[in-house]
Amino acid sequence: MNRYDATDALAVACLRALSLDEIDTANSGHPGMALDIAPTLYLLYRDLINADPKRPSHFGRDRFVLSAGHVSALLYAMLHLAGYDLPLDELKKFRQLGSLCPGHPEHGLTPGVDATSGPLGQGIAQAVGMAMAEKALKARFPGSEDALSHRVYCLSGDGCLEEGISQEAISFAGLEKLDNLLLIYDRNGSTLDNPTSVSMEENVALRFEAANWRVYEVKDGNDLEEIGNALHEATSPDEKERPTILIVNTTIGFGSELSGSHKCHGSPLGFERSARAKKVLGYPYEPFLVKEECRTRLRETFAARGKLILDSKDEAMKSYLALHEEEGEKLLSALKGEIVLPPREVYELKEKEATRNASGRYLNLLKTYLPSLFGGAADVAGSLKSDLSGEKLFLPESRAGKNIAFGIREFFMGAAMNGALLSGGLRTYCGTFLVFSDYMKAAVRMSALERLPAIYLFSHDSIAVGEDGPTHEPIEQIDALRLIPGLVDFRPADGREVVAAYEYALERKDGPTAIILSRQDLPLLANSSIDKAKEGAYRLEEGNDVELLASGSEVSLALEVRKLLLEKGIEAAVVSVPSFNLLQKMEKVPFKLPYERRIAIEMDTAALYYRYAKNVIAMDSFGASGKDKEVIAHFHFDAESVLERVLDLMQAC
Amino acid sequence: MNRYDATDALAVACLRALSLDEIDTANSGHPGMALDIAPTLYLLYRDLINADPKRPSHFGRDRFVLSAGHVSALLYAMLHLAGYDLPLDELKKFRQLGSLCPGHPEHGLTPGVDATSGPLGQGIAQAVGMAMAEKALKARFPGSEDALSHRVYCLSGDGCLEEGISQEAISFAGLEKLDNLLLIYDRNGSTLDNPTSVSMEENVALRFEAANWRVYEVKDGNDLEEIGNALHEATSPDEKERPTILIVNTTIGFGSELSGSHKCHGSPLGFERSARAKKVLGYPYEPFLVKEECRTRLRETFAARGKLILDSKDEAMKSYLALHEEEGEKLLSALKGEIVLPPREVYELKEKEATRNASGRYLNLLKTYLPSLFGGAADVAGSLKSDLSGEKLFLPESRAGKNIAFGIREFFMGAAMNGALLSGGLRTYCGTFLVFSDYMKAAVRMSALERLPAIYLFSHDSIAVGEDGPTHEPIEQIDALRLIPGLVDFRPADGREVVAAYEYALERKDGPTAIILSRQDLPLLANSSIDKAKEGAYRLEEGNDVELLASGSEVSLALEVRKLLLEKGIEAAVVSVPSFNLLQKMEKVPFKLPYERRIAIEMDTAALYYRYAKNVIAMDSFGASGKDKEVIAHFHFDAESVLERVLDLMQAC
Repeated sequence: MNRYDATDALAVACLRALSLDEIDTANSGHPGMALDIAPTLYLLYRDLINADPKRPSHFGRDRFVLSAGHVSALLYAMLHLAGYDLPLDELKKFRQLGSLCPGHPEHGLTPGVDATSGPLGQGIAQAVGMAMAEKALKARFPGSEDALSHRVYCLSGDGCLEEGISQEAISFAGLEKLDNLLLIYDRNGSTLDNPTSVSMEENVALRFEAANWRVYEVKDGNDLEEIGNALHEATSPDEKERPTILIVNTTIGFGSELSGSHKCHGSPLGFERSARAKKVLGYPYEPFLVKEECRTRLRETFAARGKLILDSKDEAMKSYLALHEEEGEKLLSALKGEIVLPPREVYELKEKEATRNASGRYLNLLKTYLPSLFGGAADVAGSLKSDLSGEKLFLPESRAGKNIAFGIREFFMGAAMNGALLSGGLRTYCGTFLVFSDYMKAAVRMSALERLPAIYLFSHDSIAVGEDGPTHEPIEQIDALRLIPGLVDFRPADGREVVAAYEYALERKDGPTAIILSRQDLPLLANSSIDKAKEGAYRLEEGNDVELLASGSEVSLALEVRKLLLEKGIEAAVVSVPSFNLLQKMEKVPFKLPYERRIAIEMDTAALYYRYAKNVIAMDSFGASGKDKEVIAHFHFDAESVLERVLDLMQAC
Repeated sequence: MNRYDATDALAVACLRALSLDEIDTANSGHPGMALDIAPTLYLLYRDLINADPKRPSHFGRDRFVLSAGHVSALLYAMLHLAGYDLPLDELKKFRQLGSLCPGHPEHGLTPGVDATSGPLGQGIAQAVGMAMAEKALKARFPGSEDALSHRVYCLSGDGCLEEGISQEAISFAGLEKLDNLLLIYDRNGSTLDNPTSVSMEENVALRFEAANWRVYEVKDGNDLEEIGNALHEATSPDEKERPTILIVNTTIGFGSELSGSHKCHGSPLGFERSARAKKVLGYPYEPFLVKEECRTRLRETFAARGKLILDSKDEAMKSYLALHEEEGEKLLSALKGEIVLPPREVYELKEKEATRNASGRYLNLLKTYLPSLFGGAADVAGSLKSDLSGEKLFLPESRAGKNIAFGIREFFMGAAMNGALLSGGLRTYCGTFLVFSDYMKAAVRMSALERLPAIYLFSHDSIAVGEDGPTHEPIEQIDALRLIPGLVDFRPADGREVVAAYEYALERKDGPTAIILSRQDLPLLANSSIDKAKEGAYRLEEGNDVELLASGSEVSLALEVRKLLLEKGIEAAVVSVPSFNLLQKMEKVPFKLPYERRIAIEMDTAALYYRYAKNVIAMDSFGASGKDKEVIAHFHFDAESVLERVLDLMQAC
């Protein structure tokens, strides 16, 4: 007996038709994959995803990430039919300003969209991060499994698998044995420019097996029975050791005149061709007409099951809370994203310390106050000082481990932590050397796009790295981070400013913070202030002849230069700028001298300072390999050289 | 009979000892992998690499890329023994300022170093690019095979294989059937922080097989016979269909007290421990003592063979040139990196055209003048207009194809083209949507570090992208590119400025150029100038009340605003800034009004403009999904809105 009947076929046809209607109305979008993968997506919602359209943020729900974000039209059609609060009127405004149906899925905008996607590959990595978070949170609260358990589903095309980040994610998911993850790969044989025969001739099944994944395959992506069976097997609860991929072989643009051609990947078919395709597909109706039985079928299956299951999870949560009072409070607090900061007086300030060390000590203090802490580094934890001491690695045999050894996979690291934050209940951090923020830039941007309170730790923040040389010395990275809309930079000058950076980052709810740390020792400043640092910039010393602006290691340099200037009878004010982004938001900037008499000092491009200072002492080349002090002197950033440059600039004014 | 004798064993011990000496003297470096992979590297030079230390830039030489760049000490020791012009005195200055032996290998600095490396994964991608270039150049000049043929060798550790870019490179190399590539993977079971058991538990052999690679394995990385045999088999000339990987199982820090521990990955052993290790390894001599027989052995093997083979290639070249006069001249010109630009009058200027289209037309004109052109896009060639029409794809069956379909592998694309440029004889370009320059940032930086004249084409350069929405709309990317030391940005405002961008980029020899292109049509400007555009910035219109600075699509916007201002009796000057980086280098900037009366207009962060203008009309958030004109108006970048903002700013002055 067939499990699926004419109504299911109609619902699939309706999904396809709605997708075409959206795309044609907007005259923009990606019909090819929407047409080919519709049956699979339909059955995923009908049979598997446990979620309640009325409670789209419930922690216990299954997550769905459309890694192939360009197929948003299909997702919106699906969410509409599935009963989410996404009226047809919104679908009619697909890709129009102000619509709930933008060009690519945006988390936080559209109910039922669990992640922002579109930049290829990052959806898979975010899904892996979600699956990690599910494991991690449950393990921290034994007994909560029935309340918290859920699966993560992800749909990708060829593009996501071509992007390198997918391999980082695949390899890591296999290592972590994330059996709560199902990746569906729509193999339609086409990317935007070409058939995949000219760009991806690999054996995908073998590639996943090599990474310890379980592999299933659907031969005919239009055969509901075959898809349904495969989905069922691919989510077998007997599997405890491996994540699963389901390869679904499809024909791009199925049902349309461009079926099988990459030409229907990224261009609308147009109303006429769509009308013919809709007829072929069994849905010969006017645009945006939705047969009620399609909605009803999903109400009876997806929505009904979701309600039951989430109700049972609520019950399980009640039981858990009743049995585990103290832990239960912690869990609820974590799920709400509440933060408990260490009292400032508990944190020891050291007279001389690299800010990476000060950061490490703060993290290790924080872990006793904030049980939801979860993070790690891209194989530089030892240098970044980011390990939580006494805590295990997060591994299959130690799911409660709080330290993540991401391996040398920066981009995945950032995207996975975005996924963990989207998942909820955990407060993440991750980091690497500042120069390698380049490798993960697109994930940092995604944190900002998703308004996630991600914390990035970037150490070895200047040419003071020394021996490793120009490939490892950041020059333009600080400015590059400062440019990202919504990100807040912190480059602390000492231990107090490190505390400021963490407090700001942790109190933040709506965007990422990058904490930029020195490799070398820095002195504790006499006049530094946690509270003032959190404002963005503040005055450390007064002086009426020239105003020096600096951040991080260059603040103590500026103070040293100030002393040398004083010996010459020149009075320099010094302004610490721990956060350039916050400075830009200050109602009243803390400068007293006119623009022409301000000089910024930073051992990097420092190109944004021209907004506040006529002169900038900066790097205009890559660094060099050598002893740190020699490299610094070579680029004229020792106090004597900076003194000379300041004097020259003052004369020129 | 053993092929290797006591002298070979001594040479290996000498390599190890020299590496330790360098690292201990610098008190900085990575002894672990230097110790474990020394035997393999030695045999690679002794038996396989065909290169002449006296002619380190000869095109016909085999290339060697140390993707695990942190093992530079070993490479320098090897190059010294092999007879390159790298005296012991330089090794003694390992990682010191001004030494030929910097922290990570730097191409152009040290003879015998074929690529800059250190940022992990990029070495593999550069090696793949070199292998592509070897195939491509030969195919363009039939008959030149004996003169040009060579192999590419690459050595990587676990880190490179963890980075996603390696998968992009592996997948692409398999697709392209690069049988001229041998990747040696030092599997020492350790990364900086941890044993690989917690970060990389994948089946590497299977992963490579999945990508159509041939896989060999050495069980004991200390067994010279086994290594020698495996290297021999792995370079069998019978293989015509696959690249090859040789997995060499080793013990990190072999011979030292920290043997097998990740703790000897990144920290010097110190002289005492090194002395003990050197004794164990059979080289109990004082630091930097080199037994002459070690050098002699390599003179008799590596250097003697290299000389013979490069001599024979020179002969083959002579024969080729004699037989192919016209083509031979082209080949020599290509190898010298000579450029022939299309005469300007041949390029048609269109009254209204998107600069991406103008760029595509220029490329297609260029291809008839510059036979060394080689490039492509990351699956957006159709949108970027970067296809060379009438030319085939570069594929195994069409090695003379000039268009490369990189797939959606931006990072690999950039790094591979760096490799092709390092290889020589080809002039490359590659591109994607501007927003995805983030995915390849680290490769663009590497172009600048290596001083390679890479050409990057980035289209869809603003919120005018429209429907695709914020994930696809660049905001901070233009400024981020401008920050890279040595890179030159061009954001042309019309067809003339497109010509300027290409001419500048092609004439350049010492660094990369990013050409940033509009998706939307732009008018041909009445007063634009190719020559002036190549200077960086120039005046389009005069006016004494306010000076408007703009680039790309905002230049015509500024001109429109100027007209509206004129209606109000206000005279605005307009300065086009096609290249911000060149503007920064102009001896005399083309501004006439004081700083306070200049206003920059750019539909992105535009944060660098404060150097030249007190006020900047810019984006301070991500974009939005909608019709391009509506999105532009929403962010107040339509002419009326900009007019208002200019008037407000003028009042505030």
